[in-house]
Amino acid sequence: MLDSSKKPSLDPFGQTSIENYDYLYEEFGIQPFKPLLQDIPETTAAMRRGVVFGHRDFDRILKAMKLHEGFAVMSGIKPTGDFHLGSLITAREVVYFQQQGATAFYCIADVEAYEDNGIPFEKSEKTAAGNIADLLALGFNLDKGYVYRQSKEERVKDLAIAFGRRVTLATMKAIYGERHLGLYLSSLIQAGDILLPQLKEFGGPKPTVVPVGIDQDPHLRLARDLASKFNRRYGFVSPSSTYHKLIKALDGSAKMTKRAPASHFTLNENPETAAKKISNAFTGGQPTVKKQREAGANPSICPIYDLYMFHFFEKDEDAAKLYNECRTGKILCGECKNRLIEVVTRFVQDHQRKRLQFIDKGKEILERLSR
Amino acid sequence: MLDSSKKPSLDPFGQTSIENYDYLYEEFGIQPFKPLLQDIPETTAAMRRGVVFGHRDFDRILKAMKLHEGFAVMSGIKPTGDFHLGSLITAREVVYFQQQGATAFYCIADVEAYEDNGIPFEKSEKTAAGNIADLLALGFNLDKGYVYRQSKEERVKDLAIAFGRRVTLATMKAIYGERHLGLYLSSLIQAGDILLPQLKEFGGPKPTVVPVGIDQDPHLRLARDLASKFNRRYGFVSPSSTYHKLIKALDGSAKMTKRAPASHFTLNENPETAAKKISNAFTGGQPTVKKQREAGANPSICPIYDLYMFHFFEKDEDAAKLYNECRTGKILCGECKNRLIEVVTRFVQDHQRKRLQFIDKGKEILERLSR
Repeated sequence: MLDSSKKPSLDPFGQTSIENYDYLYEEFGIQPFKPLLQDIPETTAAMRRGVVFGHRDFDRILKAMKLHEGFAVMSGIKPTGDFHLGSLITAREVVYFQQQGATAFYCIADVEAYEDNGIPFEKSEKTAAGNIADLLALGFNLDKGYVYRQSKEERVKDLAIAFGRRVTLATMKAIYGERHLGLYLSSLIQAGDILLPQLKEFGGPKPTVVPVGIDQDPHLRLARDLASKFNRRYGFVSPSSTYHKLIKALDGSAKMTKRAPASHFTLNENPETAAKKISNAFTGGQPTVKKQREAGANPSICPIYDLYMFHFFEKDEDAAKLYNECRTGKILCGECKNRLIEVVTRFVQDHQRKRLQFIDKGKEILERLSR
Repeated sequence: MLDSSKKPSLDPFGQTSIENYDYLYEEFGIQPFKPLLQDIPETTAAMRRGVVFGHRDFDRILKAMKLHEGFAVMSGIKPTGDFHLGSLITAREVVYFQQQGATAFYCIADVEAYEDNGIPFEKSEKTAAGNIADLLALGFNLDKGYVYRQSKEERVKDLAIAFGRRVTLATMKAIYGERHLGLYLSSLIQAGDILLPQLKEFGGPKPTVVPVGIDQDPHLRLARDLASKFNRRYGFVSPSSTYHKLIKALDGSAKMTKRAPASHFTLNENPETAAKKISNAFTGGQPTVKKQREAGANPSICPIYDLYMFHFFEKDEDAAKLYNECRTGKILCGECKNRLIEVVTRFVQDHQRKRLQFIDKGKEILERLSR
């Protein structure tokens, strides 16, 4: 029997907190990613460490990769703030698939930022320049990729208009709940984003993988439904997806969110501030040192362990090592945090140095897009 | 007491049949047009004959006309077929206001044609070329006006995106009933059409009159609501409107509709076919000649009398004359129809000759718009 109190509800616009990822397989028909690992010639750390835990129709992508057939990767960011650790996972997956041969699409979801968060387009444009610099600093290759803003890409708006005719209110309510019309419209545009790589201008129908956080799955469900409804007209191949887990909030709250600064740090943050947030973070530790030495701590509820796992273990075997040190009380939370602060500081400084070199490029791309 | 069985329901996408226009004043807050007539220096036949029977905030337009202040007129057509007698009223009002000093906007509502009727954009483009030729043949001045297609005018789509955030599903259901998402989206775009003349690029906020059939009032209600919600951002003046009555269907059905060919004729129709439709039309006549000579006929339910009234009386006093001839049984339906056929044939032939000269211009405008 399923314990319905722990049933996750997936909400791309709100709070999604998931305690048991197994439910997603049963409830939403998401497939586990682990069994595919052995077939992927080169994997990412996030895949190997179970951060990427689920997929829809990834087999189609695997086949394209193996046979060197054309495929695309598509994802993006809502430009409401600087890159954070969630945007980082997505961007790394996009860069990875691009390196594996995919044509890469990266969307600045400024219509969603407006409809969901009320951010004016002039404001999100400024944020987006930094987001693009982040993406480029992480290795995105502009020669084999397309970066665009929803508000300036007429093709995604026109796809939304085309799709509208076949979308009932009942469908939207079932997928997103009762929302204002702007959010529904922004969701239709996101379906347009996901299917954009398959338009004639981009070489026509092809497998497309969308690496996203699991809270974004509703957009995938809508896009897959529309791909099938408009298959005759556009020849769409149903889009595939990979899902990564949601990284725990540093402050012990339900989800890392831009609305709560202490819940996360950004890649553009002052390293000292980031260090302080780590220092103050919630952990899986015991109330006293004595108890922790005796009973050990609990990494499975710890955002610090999550941070290591999602981004900052150098080698895969470091995961098991820290897990054991933590469970047995060999390491205390303070020491564990200090180690992490060192790694994070190095990473953030290094990233910011690279990012700085791409800021002008980011602005240039946006200016070109705004014309 | 109101007899609720006769309450009109206004549905821009469906069948609207109105037996008692007085209800509209009470139910929807539409103002009677007649009291304004004396203040308008130059009126149209449709205004004088009560075809234009209602308005919202027309006083604002009157003031602009008197003080020679900038104002706009905005209306359009859903390109699902050739101009018919309804499109003719609207176009004539648009041309009239343009001649009175308004900047004129005429919208080819191809998004609505797609969302409501499923007409592909390539198909409605062909229809639209003819519609524009009709408009030009009726005297629309391109030097003081702007003709555009919704699907190619990014500003109306962008207004729809801006508006979406402040529109709840409850509002849409109250105005339009439960519809698919595409129709709601198309309604947001129509609100964009109505407010387009007030954007900076067109000289900023100004009184705008929208002459439409009464069934289109829901779009006005939405646009007026949005004008007020977005007043701070755009400075919108609440749009005004004039409402014309819906011309009775020739075949006695509820509404002239492109879906029922016998219910109407188009301005591009073979004059013989138009004549035949008039010959076969439903009338307010009696079952026998004898009875009609004795008791007279009923012009108030007669589409033939409507046709005269809406378009084909040369002088206003002809209306009273025919009304009396009909009521007293002095004229029989056959003779009345034959007279009308003569007038209509002349009009249609004349219009088609003019229209032919503008077809290339219509295509040229559309090609320019499609780039």
